[in-house]
Amino acid sequence: MKTFTEIRALREHLQAERFAAAGKGEDLRVGLVPTMGYLHEGHASLLRKARGENDLVVLSVFVNPIQFGPNEDFERYPRDAEKDLALAEREGVDAVFMPSVEEMYPRPTWTKVKVAELTERLCGASRPGHFDGVTTVVSKLFHIVQPARAYFGQKDAQQVAVIAQMTEDLNFDVEIVPCPIVREADGLALSSRNVYLSPEERKAALVLSRSLLQAREKAQAGGAVTAGEIRADLTRSIGGEPLADIDYVEIADFPGLSPLADTERLDDAGRGADALIAVAVKFGTTRLIDNVILTKKGMA
Amino acid sequence: MKTFTEIRALREHLQAERFAAAGKGEDLRVGLVPTMGYLHEGHASLLRKARGENDLVVLSVFVNPIQFGPNEDFERYPRDAEKDLALAEREGVDAVFMPSVEEMYPRPTWTKVKVAELTERLCGASRPGHFDGVTTVVSKLFHIVQPARAYFGQKDAQQVAVIAQMTEDLNFDVEIVPCPIVREADGLALSSRNVYLSPEERKAALVLSRSLLQAREKAQAGGAVTAGEIRADLTRSIGGEPLADIDYVEIADFPGLSPLADTERLDDAGRGADALIAVAVKFGTTRLIDNVILTKKGMA
Repeated sequence: MKTFTEIRALREHLQAERFAAAGKGEDLRVGLVPTMGYLHEGHASLLRKARGENDLVVLSVFVNPIQFGPNEDFERYPRDAEKDLALAEREGVDAVFMPSVEEMYPRPTWTKVKVAELTERLCGASRPGHFDGVTTVVSKLFHIVQPARAYFGQKDAQQVAVIAQMTEDLNFDVEIVPCPIVREADGLALSSRNVYLSPEERKAALVLSRSLLQAREKAQAGGAVTAGEIRADLTRSIGGEPLADIDYVEIADFPGLSPLADTERLDDAGRGADALIAVAVKFGTTRLIDNVILTKKGMA
Repeated sequence: MKTFTEIRALREHLQAERFAAAGKGEDLRVGLVPTMGYLHEGHASLLRKARGENDLVVLSVFVNPIQFGPNEDFERYPRDAEKDLALAEREGVDAVFMPSVEEMYPRPTWTKVKVAELTERLCGASRPGHFDGVTTVVSKLFHIVQPARAYFGQKDAQQVAVIAQMTEDLNFDVEIVPCPIVREADGLALSSRNVYLSPEERKAALVLSRSLLQAREKAQAGGAVTAGEIRADLTRSIGGEPLADIDYVEIADFPGLSPLADTERLDDAGRGADALIAVAVKFGTTRLIDNVILTKKGMA
């Protein structure tokens, strides 16, 4: 496994690998897993999928300052390069890209990639500019690595929808591969931010997965269930947890993210497209997100 | 010469060419000349430069609707595919990409690439959203063609500065090659829009190159010359032409585009960086732009 901190060195390495493969009549398929580090089993699942589908796997670890708001947790976002490298090694990563902020932004960027509509809802409403930061850094990483495929976790369902839209609109020659949420045994969705939680907050946070899984069961049970009912159920059960401070409880089509009206049906028989049930809730100073996606065939 | 109207077919062709070259141990260098067609000798000069520097030359011809304002000339912008193909053939182009609007925008794009600061001045002030349309379509073309180099005319000096900034900020692996303005024998800068001019307007429009060349001579003559003097000279000489309706007369550093104060010196001895003297002037309904760049060594 090779580690790179400089764009130029990573590029030259990938170019040499591509060229060598082509010389042997092979088309080198590069899989990129972009992360902010502090890797957990969710990231490991992305790396394993990338490993299985590509000739060369690149992991990027970069806490991207421009996707954090001024009052968000950029400074205290958890970092552990040594542990990340060990996990990467274990998962068979070929190249790790760990640039400094100065390497990625030698001066404040004047250029931003902005996706309209999809970024105005859900997390976009609470975190203005967040998705512009995400799409801008992902564009940079795509240009640096030129992957055939890039892997993203469905826990950030809106991020997946936004990046897929950007990729399509700008004709990036990259396949976006969404991967299922990985949960702890007790249901908590894995997140690098879980480390912020006190033992009491962590216990309280189980209300998210419990409520979302109940919502999913209700929609699957067979009767006519409306978006309004599910929204009310979720608001009631999450709101019943004293440590929970709800940012949003939203039900939208996926990946279009248009909110469903209260009267629209969420059960399999009544639904025309995939639906996203997504929540963002603060426990103390820690904002967690979680979701379930109801597909036409079943649930993801 | 091959002509493509579909993104997928062009991509497959370029991929096959690249792969074949790599199989022979060669790195295929692709030069892209993005245009809106109705090609003239200015475009031909870009194609010749690209031909001399690359293994494969791609010309794109696409009148990009999203860089036109609602009251601008998208509908009547001149088009002549047959003449363009003849010129491309003559200049040794390998592949012409002539997509439809539907091919490039199968639905209205939600994603835009936006460059701040540089786009707020000069033409950006008169044409809100224009440069977002340019950077968005150029991003798409870069992703489709994946050129090593892309060629742009200095007549659109601000466009060159904006695209170079975007390329740097987003880590596009593309070298931006600016090419000198090509003029008619009488000085008029070549532009596809010159075809709109009546004989009287065309004659009147010579005031632009005449005034700019005079300004350049004055700055080169050796004495201390300020930006304010040159701006006043230009405003007076262009304003003296009854058919000329001035949009702007600007003097700015290049490629940063920060306006120079009236007291700043423009002569070689007094200037710290390259300077752009740029004008936009309407003749009847036709808006023309022209410029000279004062480099530290001389003029371009």
